[in-house]
Amino acid sequence: MLSLILLMILSLIAFLITDELIHKLKNLFINAGLYGIDLCKTDKNKIPEALGVVSGCVFLITCFLFIPIAFGNGLMDTQHFPHNEFAEFLAALLSICCMLLLGFADDVLDLRWRYKLVLPTVASLPLLVVYYVNFNSTTFIIPIPFRSWFGVSVNIGFLYYIYMGMLAVFCTNAINILAGINGIEVGQSFVIALSIVVFDIIELQGDQYKAHTFSLHIMIPYLATTLGLLKHNWYPSRVFVGDTFCYVSGMTFAVVGILSHFSKTVLLFFLPQIINFIYSVPQLFHFIPCPRHRLPKFSAETNLLHASRSIIIKKDMNVFTKVMLQILTLLRLVDFTEDNESITINNMTLINLFLIKLGPMSEVMLTKKILLFQILCSCVAFVIRYPLATYFYDK
Amino acid sequence: MLSLILLMILSLIAFLITDELIHKLKNLFINAGLYGIDLCKTDKNKIPEALGVVSGCVFLITCFLFIPIAFGNGLMDTQHFPHNEFAEFLAALLSICCMLLLGFADDVLDLRWRYKLVLPTVASLPLLVVYYVNFNSTTFIIPIPFRSWFGVSVNIGFLYYIYMGMLAVFCTNAINILAGINGIEVGQSFVIALSIVVFDIIELQGDQYKAHTFSLHIMIPYLATTLGLLKHNWYPSRVFVGDTFCYVSGMTFAVVGILSHFSKTVLLFFLPQIINFIYSVPQLFHFIPCPRHRLPKFSAETNLLHASRSIIIKKDMNVFTKVMLQILTLLRLVDFTEDNESITINNMTLINLFLIKLGPMSEVMLTKKILLFQILCSCVAFVIRYPLATYFYDK
Repeated sequence: MLSLILLMILSLIAFLITDELIHKLKNLFINAGLYGIDLCKTDKNKIPEALGVVSGCVFLITCFLFIPIAFGNGLMDTQHFPHNEFAEFLAALLSICCMLLLGFADDVLDLRWRYKLVLPTVASLPLLVVYYVNFNSTTFIIPIPFRSWFGVSVNIGFLYYIYMGMLAVFCTNAINILAGINGIEVGQSFVIALSIVVFDIIELQGDQYKAHTFSLHIMIPYLATTLGLLKHNWYPSRVFVGDTFCYVSGMTFAVVGILSHFSKTVLLFFLPQIINFIYSVPQLFHFIPCPRHRLPKFSAETNLLHASRSIIIKKDMNVFTKVMLQILTLLRLVDFTEDNESITINNMTLINLFLIKLGPMSEVMLTKKILLFQILCSCVAFVIRYPLATYFYDK
Repeated sequence: MLSLILLMILSLIAFLITDELIHKLKNLFINAGLYGIDLCKTDKNKIPEALGVVSGCVFLITCFLFIPIAFGNGLMDTQHFPHNEFAEFLAALLSICCMLLLGFADDVLDLRWRYKLVLPTVASLPLLVVYYVNFNSTTFIIPIPFRSWFGVSVNIGFLYYIYMGMLAVFCTNAINILAGINGIEVGQSFVIALSIVVFDIIELQGDQYKAHTFSLHIMIPYLATTLGLLKHNWYPSRVFVGDTFCYVSGMTFAVVGILSHFSKTVLLFFLPQIINFIYSVPQLFHFIPCPRHRLPKFSAETNLLHASRSIIIKKDMNVFTKVMLQILTLLRLVDFTEDNESITINNMTLINLFLIKLGPMSEVMLTKKILLFQILCSCVAFVIRYPLATYFYDK
């Protein structure tokens, strides 16, 4: 308990340092050519990019400095030092550090897609070895209604490791594709992190308290440094966070989910990201043309955002695309106009979906609405996790 | 033994991948604005900079992939998994990964000096905790001639941790300041790494074989990826390696020295770097003016390198500087000319010292001579470590 209080103090200092460092270093980023223009604003100032590397580094350093506190008892009595827990913590930090490096390299060098898929997988390897050694539980408990078919539990063995590796890839990229308006990447990550912290605090009383203490040791400094970044990234953004931030965040959530054994709950907190991903699939896999950026279109006259659109040439359409479009229209998930030669369709992201359903709105309002949706989804996740779970699992 | 053979195969693949990736990715670096002009050449092509990040990443990934092989026996029998050794390996990789990140950030952002000193210290923290937990031996054995004063051994306690933290800072920066001509950073690191590998192989028969196996597990992939980089960085360089490479190398040597308990032997292999550092002190601490770059001056007519020089204004000199200059002159370590108002002195680096002692020479010849010196110093180190050590320590 004392160690958690000390961690909070450390995290408060980390918040202040993040805030100060971002303010101090942002010109360094502009000088290095790391900047972007905010497409949803009338003024075309240079906004420093990839500042997530600063909050990420402070986060990592805070965790380093916390090591002697977290393992204080073990350090007094090295005969009984919990080497396995220490290895867990190190593996977690190693995976996060790798993603910080990959994210920053991606921001600077603009890497190809294949590296973005391969590297998180490799980065999660130490994590999987730790999981194998410390737990190696690859059993899924089957929900009650399905037990007549599958039994009480199913051991999926090696597939469980594939699942965990893919979790890391999914989390790192899921945040990255729900992006494009001020404060949305950091905002959603903040809500997810807060949900995990609430979940940890509830579970601290349970028999998995050790796993949830571990999770808090990672999440509290993450939350503090993310808040420091949000301060500068909130509308109107004075800094952009870059892929760096999305990768670090995704890996942090994956790490905590895997090593604290609540990866399914973490996925519940990713509901908006999952919706966004599924909705994006037709464009991500190029069944429907996908432009480089799908962020909303800014109208300088009204100062409002509108859904951005892509054009499908009718003669290029195959049967598969046609069927997909019909289903999407039937579900009222797309807004499209057509003439003889082409179909104009909104780009399929959650952000554009909000705009076609709720009408054009200002950028800050859109961010707030999506974050509100994220909070609602977290509430739904808690309902699924607690009251509903008793119908599906015996307590 | 089998694991070492598998590691060598893995490292061979790592060498080929490094070679291929550097070739493929170098334009990405130029496009991202990461390039420099080679000041010691007549043609002014853009040379991609910071390619050390590629070899560093491949090095790290090779180590990750080696984990299941290194701990193969432990994975078969998780009851007796060597958690402490695993934590050691993870801490080593974490420290190296941190330096890779810091180095790359430095190359991109051009960080201030204070960050370069603070961050390696923080990055070595997990290492120090591992050392504390697994060994916590803070005792220096006193050489025989001094034992009448100090006793057989001295326990310096907490100071030993300060020493290890400073070792990390020293190693990372020592390579970085012996730089400036094609192939010198990678070449010297290669020689040091090779010396450590030879030392490990000799000691594999001894009772410290476990520590030296650990060292080989890190050094072999390092050596392979460094060789891949050297191929492109050797005269005439098609890529520059950046601070990234120097930081990763320094940290790798420090990590191995600390965790395999032969930090003093590692320092012996750093003899040229130590000489260069001591010789640089008057300029590094600004007793004598220090320009931003101290690399030799290229003469386009003769295609030879000459020692570069700095000017000291006589009326700005204080007593301390005057005494220092007199000592340096007495020791014939500087080459200077003076007029009524100023003194012109060679920049005080080992590279310039070679040029004033051996006369102007071509760049590739200078690199070869310095690397030869590095090899000679390693031989001296082995003489000190083996035949001489018996005079100072009882075997």
